[in-house]
Amino acid sequence: MTLPSTPYYETDICHFNDEGSAVVILDQTLLPGQEQQETLRTAEEVATAIRKLKVRGAPLIGIAAAMGICVALKNAGTTETFDDICKTIRNARPTAVNLAWAVDRMREVKEKLNFANFDFALSMMRAAAHKILQAQKENDGMIGMYGSFLIEDGMGILTHCNAGHLATGGMGTATAPLYTALAAGKKFRVYADETRPLLQGARLTAYELTRSGVPTTILCDGMAASLMAQGKIDLVLVGADRIAANGDAANKVGTLGVAVWAKHFGVPFYVCAPQSTFDPNCPTGKDIPIERRDAEEVRSLWYRYPMVPEACDVYNPAFDVTPCELITGYITPRGIENRINP
Amino acid sequence: MTLPSTPYYETDICHFNDEGSAVVILDQTLLPGQEQQETLRTAEEVATAIRKLKVRGAPLIGIAAAMGICVALKNAGTTETFDDICKTIRNARPTAVNLAWAVDRMREVKEKLNFANFDFALSMMRAAAHKILQAQKENDGMIGMYGSFLIEDGMGILTHCNAGHLATGGMGTATAPLYTALAAGKKFRVYADETRPLLQGARLTAYELTRSGVPTTILCDGMAASLMAQGKIDLVLVGADRIAANGDAANKVGTLGVAVWAKHFGVPFYVCAPQSTFDPNCPTGKDIPIERRDAEEVRSLWYRYPMVPEACDVYNPAFDVTPCELITGYITPRGIENRINP
Repeated sequence: MTLPSTPYYETDICHFNDEGSAVVILDQTLLPGQEQQETLRTAEEVATAIRKLKVRGAPLIGIAAAMGICVALKNAGTTETFDDICKTIRNARPTAVNLAWAVDRMREVKEKLNFANFDFALSMMRAAAHKILQAQKENDGMIGMYGSFLIEDGMGILTHCNAGHLATGGMGTATAPLYTALAAGKKFRVYADETRPLLQGARLTAYELTRSGVPTTILCDGMAASLMAQGKIDLVLVGADRIAANGDAANKVGTLGVAVWAKHFGVPFYVCAPQSTFDPNCPTGKDIPIERRDAEEVRSLWYRYPMVPEACDVYNPAFDVTPCELITGYITPRGIENRINP
Repeated sequence: MTLPSTPYYETDICHFNDEGSAVVILDQTLLPGQEQQETLRTAEEVATAIRKLKVRGAPLIGIAAAMGICVALKNAGTTETFDDICKTIRNARPTAVNLAWAVDRMREVKEKLNFANFDFALSMMRAAAHKILQAQKENDGMIGMYGSFLIEDGMGILTHCNAGHLATGGMGTATAPLYTALAAGKKFRVYADETRPLLQGARLTAYELTRSGVPTTILCDGMAASLMAQGKIDLVLVGADRIAANGDAANKVGTLGVAVWAKHFGVPFYVCAPQSTFDPNCPTGKDIPIERRDAEEVRSLWYRYPMVPEACDVYNPAFDVTPCELITGYITPRGIENRINP
């Protein structure tokens, strides 16, 4: 495969429009079939886009939230509704700590500014929001550098869900080591879980990896154990939505299962995340709120017709918690840290 | 939920037509949306129905194969093509040993008969084929009786794929203990993995369990680990397509992963199977041929549009092998046997 001249992970998937009156996002629910942008102007529109996963991935949610606060403020023309704006956006989804973190960051910035000159103060807010994206890109780059040290020629690397460009706006967290290793000329193959029910692995990870020239194989979520049993997986890289103080990590449902398999088959299991994903106020994984989502996602969302009989209940948590003892280490912008509780 | 007067597991899903010139099967690829029968008259039609999973489940494949040999023979009007008929049907799918076993059974019967009186000999063949179904029903009943001893009020029971009525023609293997425990008035809940890519759990297991009044919750394949971590699963019951002499069991892909989780979280893991699933000629799981199926099943089979980019490869084995050391025991028509290699 020839590498593309501009890697897909450098494309812009979340930005202000020229007037600063809207956040323009790539609608990820339409991938891989359609690349369509959506324009968000109010707190409600931003919260809905987050809730419907049009914009998703813990870091990118934070970025969209920060930008969303700016445009909602501009379109309100006053700071009077600032608290409502923050509350609406912050409550869109409960699990990813980056969302609350980004809203709190914007609140801190707002409190330091003098809104007597509304337009100037607003431009500072936008700069602060943009800085969160820039910082994420730099963090992804550092995660990529450190993580790539773990990758050797001939490896099979498993990932779950999408902790990629489409989740951060940069090189991704779990994907950054892959892109970095590819650029360094290393030969490896990525195995990507399709990640039911919303298929972020199939629709998003396979999409962005193959567009950047990474050799990728998709598999159903129950199949990775058999790959590990055959010795075809040498490394697992996943992202996280929140990491508790003791090192327990919440990530897309299915991650816990992959971690148990990795432990059983002796495969190193790393969580890739920037500092904003670590929540010092959350003692353990038990304290992380887990979002339960609509049964319809499992019953029929992508299907031509309903696949689950009506009389049947549905269990559909968006996340699960991997306890720290199953995590080999954390790849962060500061380096690779061994697990917190050995 | 009120129990239905006639349980769904007593319906007829594979039988001869009145003239004995066709096997009439329920087309399982159309469930749960449509209940439609299909009529098979030649060895090719039977093999195609097996390959396309219109009729599936290791025991039911054997039954359809035995009946298929009879109707192909009748429609040929001669025994000259008997070997070709057997070969065509036997080669339809490689993993389930019941298929080869049933074909061999019919060959033994055929060799003992005098086909000078073609119609009479053929009626004996049909009786022998029907006997395989009857024996399966009796075996399922015994598996149900023994297995139900493991089920207590308040339990959560996980199953994977469909090892039910739709897989055997009787009470099923893994489902028989559930139906028996329900009839005995026990209160429990079944958690059924949807079982990607072909969704036999969602489409078939949830369908037949809820139609028989069993409280059932469907979940995506990656979610069961989080249920186990919460202590909600007390027992795992699965079927098998082939059990090697050392106790290793091939079953629908994803079973190995469930077994590793069960071991990690201390949940008993039982394989339910009749004698015809045990293959004494197969020393270990490594000797079981594993069918690889079409990538299209993962990319787009049930979906409104393709979910996996074309540039991405697909890993799609139909089965995986659970090593005997992960299996708590085997529930057979003879009783519950502890694992062969402790």
